[in-house]
Amino acid sequence: QCNLTGLWENDLGSRMKVFKVDNEGNFSGEYHTAVSSTTKPIQTSPLVGSQHLDKDGQCTFGFTVNWKKFSDSTAVFVGQCFTGDNGEEVLKTSWLLREKVDSLSDDWRATR
Amino acid sequence: QCNLTGLWENDLGSRMKVFKVDNEGNFSGEYHTAVSSTTKPIQTSPLVGSQHLDKDGQCTFGFTVNWKKFSDSTAVFVGQCFTGDNGEEVLKTSWLLREKVDSLSDDWRATR
Amino acid sequence: QCNLTGLWENDLGSRMKVFKVDNEGNFSGEYHTAVSSTTKPIQTSPLVGSQHLDKDGQCTFGFTVNWKKFSDSTAVFVGQCFTGDNGEEVLKTSWLLREKVDSLSDDWRATR
Amino acid sequence: QCNLTGLWENDLGSRMKVFKVDNEGNFSGEYHTAVSSTTKPIQTSPLVGSQHLDKDGQCTFGFTVNWKKFSDSTAVFVGQCFTGDNGEEVLKTSWLLREKVDSLSDDWRATR
Repeated sequence: QCNLTGLWENDLGSRMKVFKVDNEGNFSGEYHTAVSSTTKPIQTSPLVGSQHLDKDGQCTFGFTVNWKKFSDSTAVFVGQCFTGDNGEEVLKTSWLLREKVDSLSDDWRATR
Repeated sequence: QCNLTGLWENDLGSRMKVFKVDNEGNFSGEYHTAVSSTTKPIQTSPLVGSQHLDKDGQCTFGFTVNWKKFSDSTAVFVGQCFTGDNGEEVLKTSWLLREKVDSLSDDWRATR
Repeated sequence: QCNLTGLWENDLGSRMKVFKVDNEGNFSGEYHTAVSSTTKPIQTSPLVGSQHLDKDGQCTFGFTVNWKKFSDSTAVFVGQCFTGDNGEEVLKTSWLLREKVDSLSDDWRATR
Repeated sequence: QCNLTGLWENDLGSRMKVFKVDNEGNFSGEYHTAVSSTTKPIQTSPLVGSQHLDKDGQCTFGFTVNWKKFSDSTAVFVGQCFTGDNGEEVLKTSWLLREKVDSLSDDWRATR
């Protein structure tokens, strides 16, 4: 069974710590990004999310990172657990980053 | 100030209820989707997320919907509050839907 | 049968002109965007693309817009023709905008 | 200067051949995908696209692949040339795949 609790690091060097996953699959944690499009110093940011609890260890999951400590943006990640060739757990994720824009007319360019 | 607490409906007819947003901006709620790519009956699904608490009422936010009651997929939404022309609050969002795939080699097509 | 040849306008006010679609489904044309993330004046930009030639009028298509006249970015659009409730042809599209970045380490944020 | 003319292969094993890029940056070519979500046999598919002609070798580009030989889908790719650590040219791309759907009400799930 895949359980997100623990420490994870991605290819860019970003690290996240997921605290205890509860019986519903909900969890909170901390995300320390290695990259940022703001000029303010990066700070560890809170995350909340949810995962499936499938027995086969290949559950899908998602979480939200609130960058409020240094940015008015929000990111979401969605992905799935896999077991890699070497037996280690691997997370494959996609993400969207929402930047704050001034008005509805700028909405088209707010998400990357 | 934009606060997500309450009922929201999108253009497709999907509805969500956001329970009380706490002092950190975290919230939980329920999502009832109007559309689905599975054949199982749609059921109301739990969501967890986080929002900024900016004073200007244009905060960004994100949340995760766990479709576990009828699917092994997970969706994430990210967006921003706006005040529309008629004074009503409008949420603009983008989303990603992660479908469970059998192996890493199918990862390329798991997200829409 | 859906044929992209002609003038199209989207909800943001961007307009495109598609020249003659050839027997392979290839076409060129011009795109005049209503929105831009650069500060330079917007100019009409060349596009090239390809469509299916299905008989049912619901073909999928894609095209590339090269913003070289005022930007070093490139956009791609992919979509499908539909017949709307009033009998008019409607194009539904999704897009990606690639902005030029200085180095591979900034690649993560280059696409929106 | 980055010029797309030539043979390229991605991490999944998909290969593309770009024919001569013209003075406007337009090109055509062939794409042989290693992965597919259809059950029909994969066939080499035509592509058309456009690139910037920046002197610095880091131009952005985009192209459309028409899978008409075995599918009613269309894909678009957008990306940028880079010079990797070993001096080789590297293309970084993002893509969208549009699948044909039966009606406007299914449009929400047509793109991945």
